[in-house]
Amino acid sequence: MSLQPTPSHTVHVPLGDRAYDIVIAPDAIDQAGTRLAGLFPGARFGIVTDVNVAEAQLPRLVASLDAAGLSHAEIIVPAGESTKSWMHLQDVVDGILGARLERNDILIALGGGVIGDLAGFAASIVRRGMDFVQVPTSLLAQVDSSVGGKTGINSVHGKNLVGAFHQPRLVLADLSALDTLPPRQFAAGYAEVVKYGLIGDQNFFFWLEANASEIGAGGPARAEAIARACAAKARVVVADEKETGERALLNLGHTFGHALEKATGYSDRLLHGEGVAIGMVLAHKFSARLGLAPSQDTGRIEAHLKIAGLPTTLADIPGELPPTPVLMDAIAQDKKVSRGALTFILTRGIGGAFIEKNVDPTAVSGFLEDMR
Amino acid sequence: MSLQPTPSHTVHVPLGDRAYDIVIAPDAIDQAGTRLAGLFPGARFGIVTDVNVAEAQLPRLVASLDAAGLSHAEIIVPAGESTKSWMHLQDVVDGILGARLERNDILIALGGGVIGDLAGFAASIVRRGMDFVQVPTSLLAQVDSSVGGKTGINSVHGKNLVGAFHQPRLVLADLSALDTLPPRQFAAGYAEVVKYGLIGDQNFFFWLEANASEIGAGGPARAEAIARACAAKARVVVADEKETGERALLNLGHTFGHALEKATGYSDRLLHGEGVAIGMVLAHKFSARLGLAPSQDTGRIEAHLKIAGLPTTLADIPGELPPTPVLMDAIAQDKKVSRGALTFILTRGIGGAFIEKNVDPTAVSGFLEDMR
Ligand SMILES: NC(=O)c1ccc[n+]([C@@H]2O[C@H](COP(=O)([O-])OP(=O)(O)OC[C@H]3O[C@@H](n4cnc5c(N)ncnc54)[C@H](O)[C@@H]3O)[C@@H](O)[C@H]2O)c1
Ligand SMILES: NC(=O)c1ccc[n+]([C@@H]2O[C@H](COP(=O)([O-])OP(=O)(O)OC[C@H]3O[C@@H](n4cnc5c(N)ncnc54)[C@H](O)[C@@H]3O)[C@@H](O)[C@H]2O)c1
Ligand SMILES: [Zn+2]
Ligand SMILES: [Zn+2]
Repeated sequence: MSLQPTPSHTVHVPLGDRAYDIVIAPDAIDQAGTRLAGLFPGARFGIVTDVNVAEAQLPRLVASLDAAGLSHAEIIVPAGESTKSWMHLQDVVDGILGARLERNDILIALGGGVIGDLAGFAASIVRRGMDFVQVPTSLLAQVDSSVGGKTGINSVHGKNLVGAFHQPRLVLADLSALDTLPPRQFAAGYAEVVKYGLIGDQNFFFWLEANASEIGAGGPARAEAIARACAAKARVVVADEKETGERALLNLGHTFGHALEKATGYSDRLLHGEGVAIGMVLAHKFSARLGLAPSQDTGRIEAHLKIAGLPTTLADIPGELPPTPVLMDAIAQDKKVSRGALTFILTRGIGGAFIEKNVDPTAVSGFLEDMR
Repeated sequence: MSLQPTPSHTVHVPLGDRAYDIVIAPDAIDQAGTRLAGLFPGARFGIVTDVNVAEAQLPRLVASLDAAGLSHAEIIVPAGESTKSWMHLQDVVDGILGARLERNDILIALGGGVIGDLAGFAASIVRRGMDFVQVPTSLLAQVDSSVGGKTGINSVHGKNLVGAFHQPRLVLADLSALDTLPPRQFAAGYAEVVKYGLIGDQNFFFWLEANASEIGAGGPARAEAIARACAAKARVVVADEKETGERALLNLGHTFGHALEKATGYSDRLLHGEGVAIGMVLAHKFSARLGLAPSQDTGRIEAHLKIAGLPTTLADIPGELPPTPVLMDAIAQDKKVSRGALTFILTRGIGGAFIEKNVDPTAVSGFLEDMR
């Protein structure tokens, strides 16, 4: 634990009439009642959360709302990726309607990315849209999924294929909530923090390298890392809200990562952020092989991810992987792929990611084969 | 049948980057292939329709797309209001994904308001939004539900409580399709045509009175009636896309109508448009009783609706109605109601509807009791 007091940060997301603030603070949940009472006078609140977060963090939020005299109802769903389903979407929507929340009331998503995506989507379709607030409790949700308005559920045809763009009215990222997050989940979220450095901000990556142990300990450095990651995500979202261009850079490491997640059945064998960590290393290695990026960068990235407790190679994944052609199939089915040629996020080195729409599938397949 | 050739009309809906045209023509379905090929080069198409419309109109649409060399897949669901459900929403979404339609492909809603609402909602959530085209085949869909971008399904908690605002890219209203529409459905849709006159355009109402038999016969007068109704709806939608104000005027007759639909179990006893017809007469009678509107207007409206084959009084509804307090409960639960006082669309006479947010429930209940 760090002994310095942890400062609060606020990142503004300037999206016109859908602009909102991201508050990053050690007591953001405890502040929730006051802030919500000020922003939404007269509103009632519905809280969506999963069983783990209900145990670890819901009492704090309830106490805060109660202290501010805010009326609230709770909707608790199971934890885990399989909760991003039609069935639980309907549960949450029925819960909102059953609690008689109206168009001007507010839904609160308290949890990781699963809850943010599910509750945000439910909010977007109840009475054709009600406002919602993100209270992300996993690192991944704080630096990535709670910012930007992408919401949704999974389909039998693939992940995140059903959903809506629906921006939150406020994001409250509570740093103390991370104290109850399992360390492996923390590491997985950290992969996305590193990603922002690799995409477009080498100084941020160097700063992360220099502050790795402070960030691990919590306190001011962790708060700053999260705030800088949020600000990076917010910049990309503002430039390209509906993901028609630049926002695709956020998929660095994700095409490989998704293929690996699929290959491991979206199971505990490989968390999303772990797949992204390996995917980012692969994207840099592949770029180096194409002569685009200096190969010493790859080693540096690998070293930093390892220190953070993340896997970096295919061999780090427990169990057997399917043969390369099966991985290639998954890559070709990824939604970042259009008609034959592959679209990849490649890089010119740390901080130099770019979108390449014309990647030769044979080159990728040969590369993957060599990586095994 | 009219012997004059029926002209085509085009109504433009100027919604900025979501602007679109409503084409009203006797052969709009036959033109579909050419128009869609021009608007959406390279796109593939998914057609959502119900079993009745699949039999009556799908062959024409398929022939038109085939002639233009457009690739298409069909998704056929049962007919009727109960198709606007979670289950069929999932069916349609899975059908779209299973047909491998992508973000730039186009969904076509071929049918009445049920299909337009269901398919439009599915289009809004597949991959966070794909474009869709309305091909309304019922009169109600042509003059009302296909225009304005409201889409959705029903919940156990009430009608249309789950959905999205999602504007179509094009509306093709085919006048010949109305030839296979059951006459009772035609009459029900006609109630919504009359509504536009009653809301804000007394000249349109007088024109409808004068041309009733020509409109019934089909041909130019019917085309003009539909085009003028679409233009009226489009004006209101453009003024208030998300229904925060003026768009509520479109609910003239609907608060009473919805209560009656609920009281009759959303069954064949009372179609939506029939409930609206009775509701509009009640809204005028109630306004007259409050001294707001001249009472001779009510008689004139009643006479015109009767000529069109519509019910106009509570006694016209077959079977028993529940007691007045039960009807009042349904009125209070209607979503046009906020905290205690009732919001009603009242009127100063034909063409003079207005929103009144402070209607005394006792007055309504006494009025309803007298109407039985
Ligand atoms: N919308 C977006 O832009 C976006 C971006 C990235 C990822 N995602 C989505 O996010 C999801 C992954 O998010 P995630 O990694 O947060 O998964 P998650 O929500 O499943 O959380 C991971 C685990 O940690 C638990 N947990 C969360 N916070 C806790 C806390 N403070 N204390 C104790 N336990 C806690 C959860 O119950 C869960 O078991 C995926 O579904 C992914 O598709 C969305
Ligand atoms: N989105 C909106 O703004 C809006 C506005 C008003 C109503 N609505 C919705 O519209 C729905 C009612 O629409 P509707 O009255 O068109 O109902 P519908 O879609 O059920 O159609 C009525 C019947 O006519 C059949 N049919 C339709 N066209 C036909 C044709 N050309 N030939 C033969 N049969 C045909 C259908 O199969 C159905 O049995 C309701 O669900 C209502 O909530 C939506
Ligand atoms: Zn990610
Ligand atoms: Zn209506």
